[in-house]
Amino acid sequence: MPYGDAMAARTRSEERRAEIVRAALDVIAERGYRGASLAAVAERVGLTQQGLLHHFPTKEALLVAVLKERDQWDAVPDSRWRADLLASLVEYNAMRPGIIQTFSALLGESVTEGHPAREFFTERYGTVRASMAAVLRAEYGERLPGGLTPERAAPLLVAVMDGLQYQWLLDPESVDMPAAFRDFLALLGEDPGPGGA
Amino acid sequence: MPYGDAMAARTRSEERRAEIVRAALDVIAERGYRGASLAAVAERVGLTQQGLLHHFPTKEALLVAVLKERDQWDAVPDSRWRADLLASLVEYNAMRPGIIQTFSALLGESVTEGHPAREFFTERYGTVRASMAAVLRAEYGERLPGGLTPERAAPLLVAVMDGLQYQWLLDPESVDMPAAFRDFLALLGEDPGPGGA
Repeated sequence: MPYGDAMAARTRSEERRAEIVRAALDVIAERGYRGASLAAVAERVGLTQQGLLHHFPTKEALLVAVLKERDQWDAVPDSRWRADLLASLVEYNAMRPGIIQTFSALLGESVTEGHPAREFFTERYGTVRASMAAVLRAEYGERLPGGLTPERAAPLLVAVMDGLQYQWLLDPESVDMPAAFRDFLALLGEDPGPGGA
Repeated sequence: MPYGDAMAARTRSEERRAEIVRAALDVIAERGYRGASLAAVAERVGLTQQGLLHHFPTKEALLVAVLKERDQWDAVPDSRWRADLLASLVEYNAMRPGIIQTFSALLGESVTEGHPAREFFTERYGTVRASMAAVLRAEYGERLPGGLTPERAAPLLVAVMDGLQYQWLLDPESVDMPAAFRDFLALLGEDPGPGGA
């Protein structure tokens, strides 16, 4: 087919993919991780399941696409990140349990052998740790008030966000995720003084 | 059947269950979470898969039994816990990726609707948070040097342990889990001084 037609076909396919990803996000919000079957998403966009498989060969591939898209929407240019924006992000996450549940469930699966989402999460964490270190460096310089370097604080910051999500998803009445995260930011940002480290 | 026979039958069944749980732990250590199929465990103990299902109706039920058993082995009387023992536990966990992977994968699944391990994890986290708060209170009193109460520090402590496990399982070369956890303990235990909170 002529070059122009091939371009148009690729654009249509990309638009279709984007539409499927948005539909998957809706289904996740309404029915959660387990309810987000390929069949439910296909129905939402008026495709057969076979038609959907043409764009996303597995449920995992579709969910990874949803999580990548969320990362793009959540993204803030590195130069504009501040630690207190992270507190806002956690506050916001507490209002959207569907996507947080999907993230947490898929992260859990991804640590098993040969899981299709493993590469996505491994790369993502490398990027996120580096990005968080940059945020902390911009805010505090080479050493945080609590005594850690940005590179040593970054994995803790990410771990607290992820770990709190599990506790909160399991028992939202008992775990105030945003408040707990603010407690952690305060620990990172406080000067231990001459008696400290 | 007479009372004594019933007792004996129950004991035999409990012994059989314990044997299956130990076999499952071995299979997990050798083959990881995905390799720990009911078929593989049944073969290890010389049972048919049907025979195994009599004791554990699902893979999830068997894995929850394994995790409960691990919790019992890892248990330290509350009066003997100290924060630095937690660092030793994390050090030790870094040597047994199979069971940590199983824990992390099942925790991930458990946040989905109606998952058979959800109740186990919800109860476990309630217990673990209370136990960690007691440990921190015994060590630091009503307020930690960093300024938090034991009840506010406990969910962070648990979150860091869990969150670091995911990062470490995905990328053990990039994440020094025990060192990162010691960094966190130092943050909790340091006096922020008069300029702090």
